[in-house]
Amino acid sequence: MVAKQIRDEITAEVLKMKEAIGVVPGLAVILVGDRKDSVTYVRNKKKACESVGINSFEVRLPEDSTEQEVIKFISKFNNDPSVHGILVQLPLPSHMDEQNVLNAVDIEKDVDGFHPLNIGRLAMRGRDPLFVPCTPKGCIELLHRYAVEIKGKRAVVIGRSNIVGMPAALLLQREDATVSIVHSRTKNPEEIIKHADIIISAVGQPNMVRGSWLKPGAVVIDVGINPVEDANSPRGYKLVGDVCYEEACKVASAVTPVPGGVGPMTIAMLLSNTLSSAKRTHNFQ
Amino acid sequence: MVAKQIRDEITAEVLKMKEAIGVVPGLAVILVGDRKDSVTYVRNKKKACESVGINSFEVRLPEDSTEQEVIKFISKFNNDPSVHGILVQLPLPSHMDEQNVLNAVDIEKDVDGFHPLNIGRLAMRGRDPLFVPCTPKGCIELLHRYAVEIKGKRAVVIGRSNIVGMPAALLLQREDATVSIVHSRTKNPEEIIKHADIIISAVGQPNMVRGSWLKPGAVVIDVGINPVEDANSPRGYKLVGDVCYEEACKVASAVTPVPGGVGPMTIAMLLSNTLSSAKRTHNFQ
Repeated sequence: MVAKQIRDEITAEVLKMKEAIGVVPGLAVILVGDRKDSVTYVRNKKKACESVGINSFEVRLPEDSTEQEVIKFISKFNNDPSVHGILVQLPLPSHMDEQNVLNAVDIEKDVDGFHPLNIGRLAMRGRDPLFVPCTPKGCIELLHRYAVEIKGKRAVVIGRSNIVGMPAALLLQREDATVSIVHSRTKNPEEIIKHADIIISAVGQPNMVRGSWLKPGAVVIDVGINPVEDANSPRGYKLVGDVCYEEACKVASAVTPVPGGVGPMTIAMLLSNTLSSAKRTHNFQ
Repeated sequence: MVAKQIRDEITAEVLKMKEAIGVVPGLAVILVGDRKDSVTYVRNKKKACESVGINSFEVRLPEDSTEQEVIKFISKFNNDPSVHGILVQLPLPSHMDEQNVLNAVDIEKDVDGFHPLNIGRLAMRGRDPLFVPCTPKGCIELLHRYAVEIKGKRAVVIGRSNIVGMPAALLLQREDATVSIVHSRTKNPEEIIKHADIIISAVGQPNMVRGSWLKPGAVVIDVGINPVEDANSPRGYKLVGDVCYEEACKVASAVTPVPGGVGPMTIAMLLSNTLSSAKRTHNFQ
């Protein structure tokens, strides 16, 4: 499994840096409220840090905290030299301005890559962002590790979110794909998707993309994680992607499964961004 | 003509602001070296300012100036309250780092909209740039003024430059078009262009886009300005667009001419950005 392989590489590099210069990369995670999914994500991130030898710091604040309280902790981590990455778990409670909070994160520690300065550099030729958002970075890394050629290929990104779709489109374009972005206002999305050699779907619609929409041999990266009712499951639901997996498998040359495909890559990229940040800070190659 | 109409609107607004609060918008232009085309552009911008009542300030520096000298003038204009917009005419001499120079412009005076923070905000849903780059903004304004519907339409941008193609694609997407970006690595660009309701071409290849590449009824915005030999012209050359105009006219529902189509819109948008900046600074609606 690719994500495992990347984590092994990170483990080795973390150890190498510790032995060479005595620095251990550190990731701080701030969680506001107790949304069940967010609690799970944060726990998984913490465990992942431990598994590769990255220090993790966690702050949990009550749902009714103020923006100022969250920003106070961000400032503390901005000034803490043992912290190389700061992650504010989204979504924040609705009474907070997400933009204000995220803008407080030092761009040198923006391991999520969501700062508009990072996104601007990602969009511009000849510029390089300090960090690339983890999920789209994980998608591209998957393509690289499986030796899928991107240059000159037709790519379609389904969904245009700030977190996945938009940066995924920018990344594919940086790799010289010819990119189209399909979204909720697109008429007949299947007409565009049908021409794609590479598809990244991040739209949040269970099984929206049917096998008949795909070009034979296409490579499909399914970022969607959608709960659907399932009487056979003890939880009463199961997770499916945006792409109808069974149908897609018969047409595409490769399809990432949900769960288990992109998810572990996202966490691996978060660890990778944290390691890069520590390396950059300490000028360690 | 739309550009003329916009300039008349700006003239009226500049006058209104002057009478209400005694403030006149000011644009500073910095030109390094004496490239003939740059000198012409700067002169045209200056004349345009005068024609609408915007103050213009010009600095001309010799070709062999240092980056520090250019940045010194940028800092001066950053701190000058009578200057609301600063424009560094590109390209700069090759011994200068364009990124360093442009980053010195105060983002509140970045009327060219090229600062990565502005581009990042342009790319992100729910964020708004302080300024939008003039040429792509002019393209979209043309579509608006001619009541061309953008939402839900297929749009193709040809070229992915930081100055035109990339921001044009982001703007079209903000208006809910389904956007594809075609560039030098795209195989069979005509296959994609053939599906487009709206085409913005900014690639710098004379007459590259043929009539047969277009969907009947498409709207074509031609940003290219390419000199080609012309024995009949006293100058020995003439200017043509990226799109074969004569052929395109027979298929498209509208095609902007070169010269005269987008060019005047770019200057109108520069004036508009300078006016907006002065309004924002003085909190004048």
